[in-house]
Amino acid sequence: MKNLVTIFFVLSFGLNALAQQTRDDINIPDILGYKTLKCDFHSHTVFSDGNVWPDLRVREAFRDGLDAIAITDHIEYRPHKDDLTKNHNRSVEIAKTKENQYDVIVIKGSEITRKMPPGHLNALFIKDSNPIDTADFMTAIKIAKEQGAFIQWNHPFWLKPVFPTKDGKPTWFPIHQELFDKHLLDGIEIVNEREYYPDVYKWCIENNITITGNSDIHDPVSYFFEQDKGDHRPVTLVFSKEKSEEGIKEALFAHRTAVFHHDSLFGKEEYLREIFNNSVKLIKDKAIANKGADLYFQVKNNSDVPMTFILEKDDDDFKFPARLLLPAQKTIVFSVRPKSKDIAGQKELKLNYFVKNFLTGPEKCLKVEFNVTTDLK
Amino acid sequence: MKNLVTIFFVLSFGLNALAQQTRDDINIPDILGYKTLKCDFHSHTVFSDGNVWPDLRVREAFRDGLDAIAITDHIEYRPHKDDLTKNHNRSVEIAKTKENQYDVIVIKGSEITRKMPPGHLNALFIKDSNPIDTADFMTAIKIAKEQGAFIQWNHPFWLKPVFPTKDGKPTWFPIHQELFDKHLLDGIEIVNEREYYPDVYKWCIENNITITGNSDIHDPVSYFFEQDKGDHRPVTLVFSKEKSEEGIKEALFAHRTAVFHHDSLFGKEEYLREIFNNSVKLIKDKAIANKGADLYFQVKNNSDVPMTFILEKDDDDFKFPARLLLPAQKTIVFSVRPKSKDIAGQKELKLNYFVKNFLTGPEKCLKVEFNVTTDLK
Amino acid sequence: MKNLVTIFFVLSFGLNALAQQTRDDINIPDILGYKTLKCDFHSHTVFSDGNVWPDLRVREAFRDGLDAIAITDHIEYRPHKDDLTKNHNRSVEIAKTKENQYDVIVIKGSEITRKMPPGHLNALFIKDSNPIDTADFMTAIKIAKEQGAFIQWNHPFWLKPVFPTKDGKPTWFPIHQELFDKHLLDGIEIVNEREYYPDVYKWCIENNITITGNSDIHDPVSYFFEQDKGDHRPVTLVFSKEKSEEGIKEALFAHRTAVFHHDSLFGKEEYLREIFNNSVKLIKDKAIANKGADLYFQVKNNSDVPMTFILEKDDDDFKFPARLLLPAQKTIVFSVRPKSKDIAGQKELKLNYFVKNFLTGPEKCLKVEFNVTTDLK
Amino acid sequence: MKNLVTIFFVLSFGLNALAQQTRDDINIPDILGYKTLKCDFHSHTVFSDGNVWPDLRVREAFRDGLDAIAITDHIEYRPHKDDLTKNHNRSVEIAKTKENQYDVIVIKGSEITRKMPPGHLNALFIKDSNPIDTADFMTAIKIAKEQGAFIQWNHPFWLKPVFPTKDGKPTWFPIHQELFDKHLLDGIEIVNEREYYPDVYKWCIENNITITGNSDIHDPVSYFFEQDKGDHRPVTLVFSKEKSEEGIKEALFAHRTAVFHHDSLFGKEEYLREIFNNSVKLIKDKAIANKGADLYFQVKNNSDVPMTFILEKDDDDFKFPARLLLPAQKTIVFSVRPKSKDIAGQKELKLNYFVKNFLTGPEKCLKVEFNVTTDLK
Repeated sequence: MKNLVTIFFVLSFGLNALAQQTRDDINIPDILGYKTLKCDFHSHTVFSDGNVWPDLRVREAFRDGLDAIAITDHIEYRPHKDDLTKNHNRSVEIAKTKENQYDVIVIKGSEITRKMPPGHLNALFIKDSNPIDTADFMTAIKIAKEQGAFIQWNHPFWLKPVFPTKDGKPTWFPIHQELFDKHLLDGIEIVNEREYYPDVYKWCIENNITITGNSDIHDPVSYFFEQDKGDHRPVTLVFSKEKSEEGIKEALFAHRTAVFHHDSLFGKEEYLREIFNNSVKLIKDKAIANKGADLYFQVKNNSDVPMTFILEKDDDDFKFPARLLLPAQKTIVFSVRPKSKDIAGQKELKLNYFVKNFLTGPEKCLKVEFNVTTDLK
Repeated sequence: MKNLVTIFFVLSFGLNALAQQTRDDINIPDILGYKTLKCDFHSHTVFSDGNVWPDLRVREAFRDGLDAIAITDHIEYRPHKDDLTKNHNRSVEIAKTKENQYDVIVIKGSEITRKMPPGHLNALFIKDSNPIDTADFMTAIKIAKEQGAFIQWNHPFWLKPVFPTKDGKPTWFPIHQELFDKHLLDGIEIVNEREYYPDVYKWCIENNITITGNSDIHDPVSYFFEQDKGDHRPVTLVFSKEKSEEGIKEALFAHRTAVFHHDSLFGKEEYLREIFNNSVKLIKDKAIANKGADLYFQVKNNSDVPMTFILEKDDDDFKFPARLLLPAQKTIVFSVRPKSKDIAGQKELKLNYFVKNFLTGPEKCLKVEFNVTTDLK
Repeated sequence: MKNLVTIFFVLSFGLNALAQQTRDDINIPDILGYKTLKCDFHSHTVFSDGNVWPDLRVREAFRDGLDAIAITDHIEYRPHKDDLTKNHNRSVEIAKTKENQYDVIVIKGSEITRKMPPGHLNALFIKDSNPIDTADFMTAIKIAKEQGAFIQWNHPFWLKPVFPTKDGKPTWFPIHQELFDKHLLDGIEIVNEREYYPDVYKWCIENNITITGNSDIHDPVSYFFEQDKGDHRPVTLVFSKEKSEEGIKEALFAHRTAVFHHDSLFGKEEYLREIFNNSVKLIKDKAIANKGADLYFQVKNNSDVPMTFILEKDDDDFKFPARLLLPAQKTIVFSVRPKSKDIAGQKELKLNYFVKNFLTGPEKCLKVEFNVTTDLK
Repeated sequence: MKNLVTIFFVLSFGLNALAQQTRDDINIPDILGYKTLKCDFHSHTVFSDGNVWPDLRVREAFRDGLDAIAITDHIEYRPHKDDLTKNHNRSVEIAKTKENQYDVIVIKGSEITRKMPPGHLNALFIKDSNPIDTADFMTAIKIAKEQGAFIQWNHPFWLKPVFPTKDGKPTWFPIHQELFDKHLLDGIEIVNEREYYPDVYKWCIENNITITGNSDIHDPVSYFFEQDKGDHRPVTLVFSKEKSEEGIKEALFAHRTAVFHHDSLFGKEEYLREIFNNSVKLIKDKAIANKGADLYFQVKNNSDVPMTFILEKDDDDFKFPARLLLPAQKTIVFSVRPKSKDIAGQKELKLNYFVKNFLTGPEKCLKVEFNVTTDLK
């Protein structure tokens, strides 16, 4: 139990009269003319096996800085069903009542829930969940598709003990190939809850499948994630023409997404590079010092994504920092050291770094360059 | 959005395989041969106007360090009733399924919910909520009492705009006097959610009514309270012969309670003094120094209640600290200054302080004494 | 001892190879065509009674988001003098070696240190401290003035036990009147370390004296202030034509300052209003709802100054929040409630609030207005 | 800049009148009849290349929960020497003035500072530093030894670019062998500042050399380490017969030490097992449930060392958690799952875990066992 010694009488009255909710905006810049929307395409309520009333999901989404959330209760798994209505549409209907109040888009979804294979799949942007409650899996998928659904394969690595297979990897079953071939598989979660699946990320890159990262939250978000310790819910970044359900849908089908999970970003180089370019600014790129002395530069991160830079290689004449940590919303000063006291005059240096937590592939980081000017007198 | 720069790949796998929940124990010592149980006698679920499934309340209680929790859904106010079963007993039945797993006692309650007067009253330790759902208020109370209920008047200050009255104070209506005279009013909340009611505390002291302080939580606890900022749920401390429902009930009827709200403790002097005595220890009570120099002592707080000490008065020869802050679970060093360089030899000093946040009455603090020995050479 | 369970092997290697320092920028907007520089005009080093080597003050200032810092060692009080050089200029000379590296302006100062009256006064922007080390107080001040000094009276409330006087107020002595009349008193600290002096603030307003708020730091900043708990060093905001020593000096003589202390801002209405206007934005100012329902609006704070709004008065038809807390760098949603179900149609509302922590005088808060449009159908 | 919205006027007055300092005790239990003293055997002040006045090191040590600290300024590297006295004993003399006030033992040391080999070595528990200031390295060591010194080789991995060698490992040079053979090498740092050296740990185990882990702090501790983020100064645990300088010295020569670095403990199995046994308690070791249901147990950590448990292997009939995180000072509940619904009756289970962060060797963790009783009905 943590205490603040300085709070006592101040709070005695009236805070519960507060008619407000605070939002933790997630500051990640817009890129390439698109809005960068923060979305979570997988969540549960008491209407399946979740623990919260649906409208709370919208208030949580507002608080967590999201622009959109999908409510995706299981069709086939409803442990509270004896106490609750059987209408599969109710959870979204209830959540929708808060949509306008909080300006959080509520996307109607359902989780089609079978043993692996095929496992669990979310049908997103559907109109009526009840017809999807049907025995045959492919029929259920097709009914969803006829409603215009975006089909997302959830946590392909999850259904143990059968999976992962003996080599510790998730399995792409024939039925997934069939879904993919028939254009019935539009996206896959590369991040679910606290897990990231590198092999799944590889599949998505190779087959140009839309990547998502979602919370799959059942408990209250603030019960499950220790957000004050950096353990935030995963976020799918959607690069959308506008903040609207239609905009998000179009972007998902066009594969314009990335994933923000813990401190890492996952996505195509073109998106991650633009996020980097629009977030990071060298605010002091020229330094003057006496011969032999260190030269100091400053760089600022305007986003909420911290960055860890690993040096690619030194310059012949100057030693660069082997590693730099640029926290979210901070400026750092770093120094460059001449390797000899004889180095003099003005010189333009290129500092090449890997952004260790910007993953353009399961084993590939974004490479960036800082250009600075040194002047040793 | 707060980030920890050092976490990235570490968390990528498997944390969601964790079959565990962490508990924040509330360390407040046992006193006078009783166990100091931490309880919350007021909470809601989706079965009235709350937002969570009942069993989550038990897991939250475990996490928050509680020994017992009452589920007290409204009888008369059930906004989700069209989607849910009408059985008033279900919320407690569901919560009870986790009682054994988490060793958190679940107390069956119902909130009898009328306009003020009489306002809202919890019937605690009841056996069947359904018969309490009856039109006449006094009948409802009597049915509860026949089941052995402890009747707690909730938030007497809450029902605005009628209350508070023009003089800014809560009102003790004739019906409350009637309840009290007929032994149908056993306890009153002096703290509800984030509010503390000094006038109500005064009523309880004058009439020897059991005091409680409860969360009245509707949202998830971690959604509503910002616990990482010291904004914890209120806790009723129950000084009980044993950790059991019967023990708690006996203690409540015997008025053996105190309230822990923000950083403050409220309760009878006999309880607060014992909590102080069993929490605070002078670990260095003798100091030697040269004439004219400061003398340094150390005191340790073994509890989770921070303490603010305000000096009653100085000694003739020594200047004492005007104020001391002794945080939860910490040791502090403090110094005493001789008022002249001529003061010499060994001397026993009494340092008299008010513990500002130990409120034995609405305008009365616990007074304590530290005895130290100085030796100036 | 606080722990993060998730950090262990990660940090084992190489962090001490980090050639970097992180800066906590203080985001308070530029106003009225001026740059809002963050400054601290009072600090000590080992060269008087401080505990740190002078160049650390510059690194701390960078880390704390400052643009400028004055090193102001005591002339007359040098407890370490037997171990150190007697040259009063050395501390600033040493600090100056880091000025260029960190882009933090180092202002040369000295604290002329006498018993009250006159107490302690900082001579800022001086050229040579050694001649100021002279017996006569007025002579010392005049030598400083001849060097172009800005003379700041430090902590007028500090020198106990003589002060405060019996009525608990600081004293403006004849010598202070003399200094003021002779234009030898240019500024006064209304905040020093953790203390704020309302009476001194009043003096400054009545006499148009420049206000400052400074740390007077002797220990390391991070040792003394618990910055992770919101206990930051006080900052003097200087509204300067440019980021330069000359710019700061001109602004100080022109009284263009404000003070940021804990969560509060102190300063002239014209400055605080502009800071508010450039920080706070109604990002949702129109709301539509059904008759009788609450209407939701959103407001964002782009600065690092949290704001507490206290309602001036309700509207005839709508109930406004009695209090709003708008944390630093956050968005909040708040709601407005129609007082009757009959209220319909579009209406423009003015919500008048006091910003409780923007103090334009010792008992005067900034008053602001939010204009929103409601539409009840 | 982090803010707490709830603090404003409260702190306006008087906190700087606080004559107190808070201590963060490091709770690690006493073992085997010894006191577990928390020590740091490597620190600097302005008298060599540090940035703080010596007595601050004692106040920091008190605040950080230490029992003893060595002041070990460089003999040969004194960049501030033109401004300061040349007497090598002054830094410890000044620090000693606070020893009695804070009950922190101040150990006199000097860092004999040469290029690698031999690198830097601390002479601890010496009586006079000045004679050690001599040109010949072996002579300096011998003079220290004649004063009874404990000789500690500091950061064997540090002096780049020569070291580490091409294979990325530190080098044990002939001179270190000579020192060791002549009993002139008593201890080695396996942790220095934020670095841990697995190869050096191996040397110490193989040769029964005393291990230490120290801060080597030059800046203020709170400037360098981000303690509120779990980044604490390294601590050498000394298992001493008493809290005294003589006790510490005896324990160091008898190799009775361990190291607490980030979240990890390093030391002999006999010490780490006792720390575990005296810290961790199964507070619920029996569970009853229906056949097929999970069984819940509780375990509590009374120390400030968090623990990460990795399962060795499952039971034939029950699935155990693959990983458990037991934070400092917390209780957790965890569950065990029967692999089939047919498992019934009472059974004693042994849960074998590796404590991942209790390192009894560079690649060896402490193995522990929890014994629980299940009862499935």
